[in-house]
Order: sequence, then structure tokens, then C-alpha cells
Amino acid sequence: LPGCLVLSGGDPVSEEFSASLAQALRAPKASVHRKVFPDGESYVRLPEDATGSSRVCVVKSLAPPQDKSLVELLLILDALKEKGVSRVEAIVPYLAYSRQDREFLANEAVSVRAVLRAIRHAGAESLYTVEIHKEESLSFFEGRAVSVSPYEAMAEAIEVPDGDTVVIAPDRGALGRAVRLARALGLPYDYLVKHRDRVTGEVFFEPKSLNVRGYNVIIVDDIISTGGTVAKASSILLSQGARSVTVVVAHALLVGDAWRKLVSAGVRRVYAANTVAPASGNPKIIDVAPAVASALGATA
Amino acid sequence: LPGCLVLSGGDPVSEEFSASLAQALRAPKASVHRKVFPDGESYVRLPEDATGSSRVCVVKSLAPPQDKSLVELLLILDALKEKGVSRVEAIVPYLAYSRQDREFLANEAVSVRAVLRAIRHAGAESLYTVEIHKEESLSFFEGRAVSVSPYEAMAEAIEVPDGDTVVIAPDRGALGRAVRLARALGLPYDYLVKHRDRVTGEVFFEPKSLNVRGYNVIIVDDIISTGGTVAKASSILLSQGARSVTVVVAHALLVGDAWRKLVSAGVRRVYAANTVAPASGNPKIIDVAPAVASALGATA
Repeated sequence: LPGCLVLSGGDPVSEEFSASLAQALRAPKASVHRKVFPDGESYVRLPEDATGSSRVCVVKSLAPPQDKSLVELLLILDALKEKGVSRVEAIVPYLAYSRQDREFLANEAVSVRAVLRAIRHAGAESLYTVEIHKEESLSFFEGRAVSVSPYEAMAEAIEVPDGDTVVIAPDRGALGRAVRLARALGLPYDYLVKHRDRVTGEVFFEPKSLNVRGYNVIIVDDIISTGGTVAKASSILLSQGARSVTVVVAHALLVGDAWRKLVSAGVRRVYAANTVAPASGNPKIIDVAPAVASALGATA
Repeated sequence: LPGCLVLSGGDPVSEEFSASLAQALRAPKASVHRKVFPDGESYVRLPEDATGSSRVCVVKSLAPPQDKSLVELLLILDALKEKGVSRVEAIVPYLAYSRQDREFLANEAVSVRAVLRAIRHAGAESLYTVEIHKEESLSFFEGRAVSVSPYEAMAEAIEVPDGDTVVIAPDRGALGRAVRLARALGLPYDYLVKHRDRVTGEVFFEPKSLNVRGYNVIIVDDIISTGGTVAKASSILLSQGARSVTVVVAHALLVGDAWRKLVSAGVRRVYAANTVAPASGNPKIIDVAPAVASALGATA
């Protein structure tokens, strides 16, 4: 990108992501110096390169600890604004708080709105993220906001099992993800629907159209937090005769005993993008920074 | 205050502070419902009372975990704005990040500026805090911003030792605090200056004007974090013949082994305002919410 400096937010996730991004953009890279004081406050200092640039792409994942990551991003953006950098773009590989995108109960804070507004007001002219929970949330950012799909890039690194294989979304809302991944892999897709047995009242899930008996299943989702949803889907599909379950997820938070849950539920393998550092387990991490670079380049 | 609802941010410190504030203002009080999800994201829901009010005083201390407290405050303010509450005031008993108020080294983020701007943009029309580190920082908030002195209220609760007693600031920058507390207590004041022995090169501290031999000393400061500064001042003053050392501090974070340090340094007693929850030790906590209520009332 013309005159663009890739500026890493300094934490390990942002550091790795920005190294790959800079390489894909053939742009120079620098890093914010950050530390945390004994009382818990963050400290941020810009590298000299950043203050003399006309265009800076700040890379800062809002990976856990989410609030600290967000505050550090705000400190960086505010400092760049004060230094007179005329064009600042925020590259946020993982946008925390994206699931709280409406009032599910009356008077709830719409957290993603507050987060996107804070980033905008702190000085980001545009925002690029990977696989936001709901595309519509981007409208809360009053500027160019882009959610990059990671699934096409991930498809290239996924080892598809031999035999009939289908991509399945854990619910109707995630169907778009299954479609994108399935197309990239040249596979069919489906999603799980909830049924209630009219006699027993029992709730169960099954694929909308397909009988999975004998199929390898690839479950796709945007975020795995505690792993409950995906573990349940895996158990159900295996009990319905699926041959194997593979999981493809953009943001593998894997908090608490999430990894153990997935393993117990029979998941064979987990693929995740490099947008967060998983808190547990050992998913295969796929670099999606080049996909973000393409999106940035396309709109330069 | 006319039509004012005191809205607690829901954490324990804000809860207690707002109860006292509401009582002093003779205003109704309600609380935000907050929780933290397993992955670390906060959740905030406004009480019904808040959404129908024309004026809301949000009470949220930025006590540790500072970043979480700040993000929750931004979520609350954004939600109130969306609900059309026309007048929102932020009461922030402890304003985190206030010590990073300028570039001590080139290109450092001026954190307090970013924090105050974020609070303003999220929807706070005015801001009240207790004893900000530097009064000048308030100008970063583009609206009415007030730092309330806690020392007059604290003076009423302090047991002054018998005998000659002096209030001492640990450095010239904190002298204003010593003056306020000393006036409220009817005592003399002084501050510590750094000297270097011209022969040995050794650095030492002593009061600017006073010989403390035989005096009870009250050390006053705005923040005790790790306790290093105040512990050192106490040791020095006792070695110079002070009879006793009492500490009066607005914000007693007391992180790590701060309390042990103070005790080892001979501090007899610590008084602190109710703006944070000390991480260690057992300071005597003094309620300063009525002082904030007076400031709010005076500018209603």
C-alpha cells in the first residue's frame, strides 16, 4: 500500500499477524512498545517510524484480555492522532464483544456498538476485521468497515478426509459460513435445526436436509469460546452415524475446559485462524493475514 | 439534584460509593446489572429506571481491573445515549491512567487524554472525579470536568496524634495536597526535597524547611500503588527523628506487597478514601461521596 506502515500493537498475537500482513503488503513494519505497570495499567509508546508516516495500519487483536487489548488500541490511536498521522486504519483480527450486537433483553448495552464507536472516535478512519459475528454490526462504525472472510484462505490448508464429506453450520445463522467454506472446498453444505419430539417433548438437533450416516462432517463456526455448542453438535452428528468430525473456526478462544470438551465429543481435528491465542488445546493455526492484505489492497 | 438518578456501575466499589452519593444528594439510586462471561467479556444491562430518566449520574470507579472498569463505563454511557437520556454525568471516583498525563519520553501515549476523550465521546456531558493526579489533565475532557478534593472530608475522620504534628508531601508536586490537608487540620506543612551529598555523592531526602525530630508526621499523597515512595519517605522521616508516621492517601491501590512495605517502614496508620478497593492491607476507609455530592450540587 502506498506509504503504509504496518504498526503492531505489541502483544504476541498482533505481532505475528502484523509480520505476515506486512510481508503480504510488501510494507514496512514497526511495533508499539508496551508494558503493564504493577497496578495493571498499560503503557504504550509509539516507535519513531510511526510518527513520521502519513498512513499507518495499526494491527491490534482484541483477543483476551479483551478490555486491556481494547484500551491499548485506543491509547495507540489517540497517540497517532496527536502526532498528526493523517490516515490511520485499524486492523483488528479479532473484534471482541461482537456477539453482543443487539438488545436480546430490553436495555442491554449493545457492546459491539460501543466498541466500534470508541475505536472510530479514537482516530481510526477505517476498520478491517476477520469474520465479525454479524456483518450488520459494521454499520455501527462511521467509516469504511470490512469483515474479511477467513474460510477461503483456510480451505487451502485443510486436509479434507477421504470419502463423502459435508460442511455443516451449527445453526441457521451460521449457514453463510458453511456456504463459503463448502464452496472453497467443493463440498456440499447443510445446517443443524432444532426439533422437539411431539410426544416426549425432548429437544434434539439434526441436519436440515442431509442424513450424515457415513459422512465425514466439517463443522464451521465463527467463535469457539467454552466449546459447548460445537461439542454438542459433534456428539449429535457422531451419534447419527457421521464417520468423523472436523472443526473449522475463525476465532478459537477455547477458554476453560473447551478443548477437553471437544476431544470428549469426538472432534478429530480443529483448524483456527491466527486471530487469537487459544487458551487451551492445540488447534492447527492457519495464517489469514494475507486475506486481510488482499482486502486492504483492494480498497487502497 | 433535580430529576437526577444515581446509577451505580454495579461493581462493589461503585455500589458503595453511589449509595452514599445518592443519600447525600437525596436522589434515587439504581444499579446496572453486570456480569462477566467465561471468555472475559463484560455484560451490562441498564435498570428500567435509568432509561426513563432525563438526568443520570453514572457512578463508576476505574479501580482495578482498570481496563474492564473503563470498558464497562463506556458500555453504560453508550447504552444511556441510545436510550435518549438527555443529560448524563460520569462520576468516576478513581480515574485510572491519570499519572500518564504527558510524554515523559518522546512518542508515549498520553493515556489520561485517551481515557477522558473516550468517556466524553461515549456520552458523558460532564465528569466528576476525586483527586486527579494533575488538575491540568481535566482540560482533555471537552466538557465540564471537576476534580474534588477529598482531604477536607478526610480531615474530619483523622485522629491527629498528640504533640507537634506536621503534614508532609513526598515531593514538591504533591505540596498542594499537603496544604489542603494541613489547613483542614490546622497544622503546618512541608515537603521532601532530594539532596546529593557533595562529597560522597549519596542521594537523600529531607523536609524542605522543618527538622522533624520529635514531630508526628502525616504523609499525604494521591495514589499509593506499590507503596515504594511512601515507604521510603516514612523510613527517612523516622530515621531523622520523627515520633510517628501516619499516611493519608486518596486512592489506596496497595498492589503486591505494598502493605507489608508500609508496615516495615514504620507507618503507624493509613487513611484512604473509598474510591478503590485496596488489594492488600487494612487502611481506614473514609467516605468522600458527600464531598462529590457537594461539588455536584454546587454546579447543578
